[in-house]
Order: sequence, then C-alpha cells, then structure tokens
Amino acid sequence: MSSTVPSLVKLIEQFEKLPGIGRKGAQRMAFFMLSQPFEKAQDFANAIVNAHKNIRRCSVCCNLSEEEVCPVCSNVMRDRSTVCIVESPRDVMSFERVGEYRGLYHVLHGLISPLDNIGPDAICLKELVKRLDDGEIKEAILATGATTEGEATAIYIANKILKPRGIKVTRLSYGIPIGSNLEYADEMTLCRALKDRNEF
Amino acid sequence: MSSTVPSLVKLIEQFEKLPGIGRKGAQRMAFFMLSQPFEKAQDFANAIVNAHKNIRRCSVCCNLSEEEVCPVCSNVMRDRSTVCIVESPRDVMSFERVGEYRGLYHVLHGLISPLDNIGPDAICLKELVKRLDDGEIKEAILATGATTEGEATAIYIANKILKPRGIKVTRLSYGIPIGSNLEYADEMTLCRALKDRNEF
Repeated sequence: MSSTVPSLVKLIEQFEKLPGIGRKGAQRMAFFMLSQPFEKAQDFANAIVNAHKNIRRCSVCCNLSEEEVCPVCSNVMRDRSTVCIVESPRDVMSFERVGEYRGLYHVLHGLISPLDNIGPDAICLKELVKRLDDGEIKEAILATGATTEGEATAIYIANKILKPRGIKVTRLSYGIPIGSNLEYADEMTLCRALKDRNEF
Repeated sequence: MSSTVPSLVKLIEQFEKLPGIGRKGAQRMAFFMLSQPFEKAQDFANAIVNAHKNIRRCSVCCNLSEEEVCPVCSNVMRDRSTVCIVESPRDVMSFERVGEYRGLYHVLHGLISPLDNIGPDAICLKELVKRLDDGEIKEAILATGATTEGEATAIYIANKILKPRGIKVTRLSYGIPIGSNLEYADEMTLCRALKDRNEF
C-alpha cells in the first residue's frame, strides 16, 4: 500500500524527519493525524507555519521572540546587572520554568566546537560584546552544559570576553543530581562533586 | 519564557498531542521545526492538510485511498477469491510490505470490544457482508491480533458472517516469533505454540 496512497506516504515521510522518530512512530503519528477532525489537523499545520512566520531573534539577547525585543529583555522588573549565558532557547525555557532567576539571558545559539568547524564567530558573541560594552552588566553566569564543548565555550568567553572587561564571572555548579543515588553517578561527576565539596 | 512566545507555545502543544510524545519530545520537535528553512516547514504543514483532503475510505474494502476504489481492489492481477480481514490500514501496510499476499483486504477500522461499548455495528462489517453477498470471495483469512478483542472479533465474524455463507475461514498462525529465543516467549505464547505444533 505504501506506494499507492501518495499523500499518506508523504505525511509519514514528514513525520520521519522529526528528531527521534523512526518509521513505526511516523506511521503511528500519520494515522493519528488522519483520525483527527480536519479542523484539528488544520490547527496543527497552522501552528507550524505561524511559528515560522512570527518568531525571530530578540535584538538584545538573541532568544526567540515575537517582538523586536523579547519580554525578558523589556521587563523592567528583571535585574539588568546579571546575564546568564546559555547555549539555546531551550535552556532559557528551563530556567524560566524554575522561576528562580531574575536576571537577563544571552543565547549563544551553539557552542564553540573546533572538531565541527564551529569557531567563536559562528555563535552569538558579537551581540554579547555589544551588550557588555553598554556597561550595565556586572555579573555573567556561564550556564553552558558540562560537556567538552560547553566547558571550552565557557573558558573562551570568560578569558577572552568577560575577564578583560572586569566583569564578575560565575559558572553553574556541577555534581550529583538532586534525588539521585551515588551508585548512579559516573566517575567524572563523582570526582567533580568531591573536588567542589562545600562546608556543611 | 513559555508564557511569552505564544506561537512557540502553540507549536509545542500541538506536538505534545501526538501519540507517544511528552513535553520534552514536543519541545525538541518544535525547535527542530524552527531550525528548518521556511519551505521545509511549509511542506510539513501542507502534507498534513493534503493527507486530510485527499484520503478517504475505499468504497469496497474500507482501506484508506485517494480514489473511490483503492489500487488493491482495482488491481486485476490480485486474487479476488481471497480476502484478508484486518483491524486497521496499518495492518494492510504491513502485509503489503512483506509482499507475499496476493489477495484482497477488508479493513474493519476497529475491533469488537463490549467493555469499550464497541459492538459489531461500530466496525465495517456491513461492507464485508455486501462483498460476500456478491459471491466472488471463497476464503476469508481472519488476521486480527492475538488479543482478547482480536480473538472475539475473529470468532464473531467466523460464526455469524462467514460460516453461515459457506465461506472457507482461516486464521493467522500464532506461536514463537521468528528469530526469538524460547526464554523470551510468555507462557500463553508457549502454550499456544505447543498446542499448534506441526509435523516436522
């Protein structure tokens, strides 16, 4: 049948392109979509097109936004002296869900990765430098992941951009995840948790 | 941020409705979609709408089709004396991928399930009766799943519809899946495989 219902085949192929979705999952999604009323399917299609049309990068922090300046950057209640530097808009989402952080963000849209030919110019550092030179920012929190690329990017930004400008640099703490047993922690994490131990 | 980029939130919500997709997966898909060029996103949206507009049920076998009569039913090379009765269009897809079966299909679009209040009238049995009364079909293969509902539906169709019309009734064989070790087979399967053993 696969060769004989072209619109179904096309729909399955589209779902297969999604990250983490194989052929069976794509089939399941396509049949689910066909089982919905037409209006629901239309809503889905519109959500895709509208997201693309309406969303751009905030001209200040490079986070995704529907406005020229995103709601975080234009919120006068946020602490404008602290900037949290993250890899992607998803990280901003995670921090905002926690709701603890009241400062601003800067989204790099990538990490420095010489092996993948991604240098400092390929991520949003120009925009960061511009903000720093405006002089409002006093502390930068390096919140890239605890991976090789995350560490390398953090070190680069700290040494080449932040410290020469006299900005206070901090980094997220790394160690045993809350709620986790020691037996599940890998050696690197355990080692780091021991090294970074705090007085109790 | 979740509350501040409405089109992104809407897109994530749409992906979350897909079967087997949670919040994290939906976020990943939404960001993937935004990372694509606009044309690719447009293609995705169009595939959804077009599938809905173009696909209907074949007037003979109830399988999904873009034509009034599906390509299997209108293919003169297929054996018109045998009909394979399945639960859903997905099952037709599985059989056609194997490519071994040369007869016709009948898609029930569901199984009889008294607990879920799905009786014989709620699945495509009227259409099956009509085909049988045309007199071309000599053998019906009951290819519903080896679940309670699959068995109940097979028994109902065999006793109430097929046997009274003198049609030969067969059922898919059940047993150990090919390539599987005995230790992974559950007791019911092992029991069935023993009962249905064949001369070697």
